Amino acid sequence: MGNWRKNLRQVEPYVPGEQPRSLDVVKLNTNENPYPPAPGVLAALGELGPDSLRRYPDPTCGVLVRELAARYGVGEDQVFVGVGSDDVLAIAFQTFFHSSQPILFPDITYAFYPVWASLFGVPYRTLALDADFRIRKEDYCQPNGGIIFPNPNAPTSIGEPRSFVEEIVARNPDSVVVVDEAYVDFGGESALPLVSQYDNLLVVQTFSKSRSLAGLRIGFCIGSPELIQALNAVKYSFNSYTLNEPALALGTAALRDEAYFRETVEKIVATREEAVERLGQLGFTGPRPLGNFLFVTNPALSASRLFQDLRKAGIFVRYFDKPRIRDYLRISVGMPEEMEKLYDFLGKYAQ
Amino acid sequence: MGNWRKNLRQVEPYVPGEQPRSLDVVKLNTNENPYPPAPGVLAALGELGPDSLRRYPDPTCGVLVRELAARYGVGEDQVFVGVGSDDVLAIAFQTFFHSSQPILFPDITYAFYPVWASLFGVPYRTLALDADFRIRKEDYCQPNGGIIFPNPNAPTSIGEPRSFVEEIVARNPDSVVVVDEAYVDFGGESALPLVSQYDNLLVVQTFSKSRSLAGLRIGFCIGSPELIQALNAVKYSFNSYTLNEPALALGTAALRDEAYFRETVEKIVATREEAVERLGQLGFTGPRPLGNFLFVTNPALSASRLFQDLRKAGIFVRYFDKPRIRDYLRISVGMPEEMEKLYDFLGKYAQ
Repeated sequence: MGNWRKNLRQVEPYVPGEQPRSLDVVKLNTNENPYPPAPGVLAALGELGPDSLRRYPDPTCGVLVRELAARYGVGEDQVFVGVGSDDVLAIAFQTFFHSSQPILFPDITYAFYPVWASLFGVPYRTLALDADFRIRKEDYCQPNGGIIFPNPNAPTSIGEPRSFVEEIVARNPDSVVVVDEAYVDFGGESALPLVSQYDNLLVVQTFSKSRSLAGLRIGFCIGSPELIQALNAVKYSFNSYTLNEPALALGTAALRDEAYFRETVEKIVATREEAVERLGQLGFTGPRPLGNFLFVTNPALSASRLFQDLRKAGIFVRYFDKPRIRDYLRISVGMPEEMEKLYDFLGKYAQ
Repeated sequence: MGNWRKNLRQVEPYVPGEQPRSLDVVKLNTNENPYPPAPGVLAALGELGPDSLRRYPDPTCGVLVRELAARYGVGEDQVFVGVGSDDVLAIAFQTFFHSSQPILFPDITYAFYPVWASLFGVPYRTLALDADFRIRKEDYCQPNGGIIFPNPNAPTSIGEPRSFVEEIVARNPDSVVVVDEAYVDFGGESALPLVSQYDNLLVVQTFSKSRSLAGLRIGFCIGSPELIQALNAVKYSFNSYTLNEPALALGTAALRDEAYFRETVEKIVATREEAVERLGQLGFTGPRPLGNFLFVTNPALSASRLFQDLRKAGIFVRYFDKPRIRDYLRISVGMPEEMEKLYDFLGKYAQ
């Protein structure tokens, strides 16, 4: 038996969330957008011809970068795109966290941060959220090799104001600070206006939530030209041609329909606000949500058992069997009629 | 000015080939397939609905993995897919070449190998091709941390028989041997029948050449279940959701039309064989090509000047300003009428 196994990279494989294919399922487990993408997106699909499939895509992703720069009022040299925000974040870890000092992130946050740190050999330190699940910004003043946190945070759905982010960025001029704004469009306050002022701030967003395009895998980030250039150098050393032609064409079409974007975001926010009330009447509490999901607990119920029982009833939510949050469920905001099914189930539910 | 630059990863950015967008160009520079993808591929595009865009894709890429396993007669646990073969190769570098011994590859080969080695901190040694640009298999018996080579090789278009690959694999039971078969469908002999016998052999292929889908970014590899499992562990630690829904659906459709695949491959091979003859009449020589491209030189002409003059005439080919090959051009096989434009130009050309 060959000894080639000695050179294998040992990693703890990340287990992605369930993606049930059945259409009968009420899918409130991966924070997808319940509304279809903008009408122009499907129209753009019909316009893709054989040449756009047969030829390599533009490695600079020019059409999408230009549209993003115009939409967010920044230079084209301030925009980087990737295969979902996971790709953008993974490349940011490789590019900016090449330090012997530990990087800092919250103990309760996006589960991929420690996975990337392990994969790329980046030392890290997690900092405990306070008793209300809030990030303690004063903890982020210690020496570090970089900082990353989501705002709003996940799975808590708690958002902090721009001034909060600015304080962390301003106090860490020697670190790159990555703010992961996957959920910002649902009521958070974006740090984007700060990028012109701080060359060490990178703001990451995605088309998977507010733009209804999780199936296309499009993420992006905005920062100083120097940060973007460094990301591109790593990206071009890994895979020159990443976003495929459908992603470039359809992502661009999605950006062009601002009215539809605002309309669906407003609907989701309205459904979320109603969910806070309705779930409250059913005995659930949790932090005030700013993402397209709620993080709730019910002192009368076992969250893990409720999670299983919901699943049996075809209602998928997310449960994390981890310290401090194992009494909570993360529930994505679905269509009003899907939420009614959830309220119905919970109204009749007795363990 | 902040000192965050100290933690930047320093890489030499890879510069991808030109992708002129003009339709007037005769594009023989990136080894794309000149024929459109199979008719079923465009039909599959029309069947993509809003839900397939709005939801996350299947992270296991199940539909495409199953189709590949059936097509190549291997188990589903022997197939891994990625965002183009570049993604597959980059993940293979990260996964299998985690060694302090140098990995081995030819000095004249795909330009990305040294780039990945640098990015992931993998030591490497390049081994000189012989005077006829052939890989010397006896060189690949020295101690190493892994082996990678394309077959057919690029930019030479030279292919070696399966027995040649087997000898290298058999002599290196302590290394993973990666055979990069991007061009194998145009007349090369694939090492795929060997994977059932050697658990250290990984065969990488792509949909970008013989399947006319460069614009979708689909690559795959086949190997022992243990190799595939290790690749998946790294992939899931980097980005769980990589191939988007259009890539999964259209890639699967492409695989289902075997007759079209064979027909277009045969046409390209016929055009290539004619090109060998026609270019020969014009004074060009080169190794016998087995990929969808030719590697040619003309003792009466400066290759770099010819490259520039072709470019001015709207005919794009590839030139590598590197030792040993700077008298050569790499010319992709285009449509017969595109090749006629090339012959016409060369027939009238005098420096």
